[in-house]
Amino acid sequence: MLRVRLIVEYDGTDFAGWQLQPGQRTVQGVLEEALRVLLRQEERVVVEASGRTDAGVHARGQVVAFDDPLELPLKAFHPGLQAALPEDLAVLRAEHAAADFDPRRNATGKRYVYRIWNGPSRRPLLRRSHWLLRHPLDLEAMVAAAALLVGEHDFKSFQAAGCSAKTTRRRLDRLSVEGEAGGEIVIVAEGSGFLRHMVRNLVGTLVEVGEGRRPAASVAAILAARDRTVAGRTAGPEGLCLDAVYYGAARDEA
Amino acid sequence: MLRVRLIVEYDGTDFAGWQLQPGQRTVQGVLEEALRVLLRQEERVVVEASGRTDAGVHARGQVVAFDDPLELPLKAFHPGLQAALPEDLAVLRAEHAAADFDPRRNATGKRYVYRIWNGPSRRPLLRRSHWLLRHPLDLEAMVAAAALLVGEHDFKSFQAAGCSAKTTRRRLDRLSVEGEAGGEIVIVAEGSGFLRHMVRNLVGTLVEVGEGRRPAASVAAILAARDRTVAGRTAGPEGLCLDAVYYGAARDEA
Repeated sequence: MLRVRLIVEYDGTDFAGWQLQPGQRTVQGVLEEALRVLLRQEERVVVEASGRTDAGVHARGQVVAFDDPLELPLKAFHPGLQAALPEDLAVLRAEHAAADFDPRRNATGKRYVYRIWNGPSRRPLLRRSHWLLRHPLDLEAMVAAAALLVGEHDFKSFQAAGCSAKTTRRRLDRLSVEGEAGGEIVIVAEGSGFLRHMVRNLVGTLVEVGEGRRPAASVAAILAARDRTVAGRTAGPEGLCLDAVYYGAARDEA
Repeated sequence: MLRVRLIVEYDGTDFAGWQLQPGQRTVQGVLEEALRVLLRQEERVVVEASGRTDAGVHARGQVVAFDDPLELPLKAFHPGLQAALPEDLAVLRAEHAAADFDPRRNATGKRYVYRIWNGPSRRPLLRRSHWLLRHPLDLEAMVAAAALLVGEHDFKSFQAAGCSAKTTRRRLDRLSVEGEAGGEIVIVAEGSGFLRHMVRNLVGTLVEVGEGRRPAASVAAILAARDRTVAGRTAGPEGLCLDAVYYGAARDEA
């Protein structure tokens, strides 16, 4: 039995998210089935991920792991598995891992990239990868608000309503806002861990600051409130991409 | 009667090209039908474009024109027309034009962008916008070959077989190759006019130089041969995007 780690990329547009759900096309479901066939198993081959992604959310560096009872050479998974996967899901790399490697628990950090197109027209070429916002955004205000969110905080106000993580304290190492009002805006969030919907709620709140609906300084009060209803709306899934998962102190990419 | 000029963007993936074809989903067909309804016409509203694009080819700056018998305000077309168009087609700008404005004949130049992903793995997030090439490309050789193609030449060797333009002389003002082997490579072609398949045949030939199958200097002999069969293969449509069309001596974007 060998533990295998894969780096996978997917276009989340046509998936009902990562997690297996009966009757739904999910990334986990499609990947597990391709591996079941490749590994000639009758039962499901359980694939664990660094974390779930919601319906419509993309990944360029999702890290997953599973046990290979046939101990196939790595080239069976990359490039071997390519032909068995649909065009919106691919394995970018395969490597062996320690028998106890757990992609979620062993992760020391993650990087998400969120893309916005800020302009008056729909953009057919960006519609699958960018959140479209017509109203011109005040980038300086967004940068100022983002700076107040970096660091270790209780992010309960940015956690999906109804979600209960053991602790809602997280360390946000980076929350950069770059680009131009009336054009493409890219927000990069990097941190030790993220609550459910946290990146999308952070982005939605930054956008409301950019729209002039909240002052930049208000994010301090939002953090302090520990209440989802005081933060901004949830940004669309189409703009979000899990860019990389880090393992180890040095944050080497997996 | 007012002449209206639109700048349109489309994701060519799910269109059978620009040109109207019975029973096929084409950009011209979808746009003409939306305008027919908006302008309350019983007959087809004829829309002319700066040029056709093939099936699968994208446009970010296609220029089209039509006559508006209702003389509607421009906001009827932008943003007004947005709601009537599918998500893979949008109007980016609308303006009035001279009564005799002809988007094809009046064009003084065009800019195309061609995107390649050069790497060993399929890239789900790039599959609609990039030509995927696994074999590492020699960028320096491609840059050298491209330099030999810039200028005024007879591009007959790069014209689609079976196509008969009156003259095959064209002026290529720019053919840049930028990026990195093993990553994204972007080729920009700018010129006074382009023959059918010319950009894709230029790119296919540059790629064969990058693959080491032809020396960079061989493109001079390919030009001289005036024979499609001596040039390289036709690059995939998915990497090609009509970026801008120029009108007037100053090459102001339309």
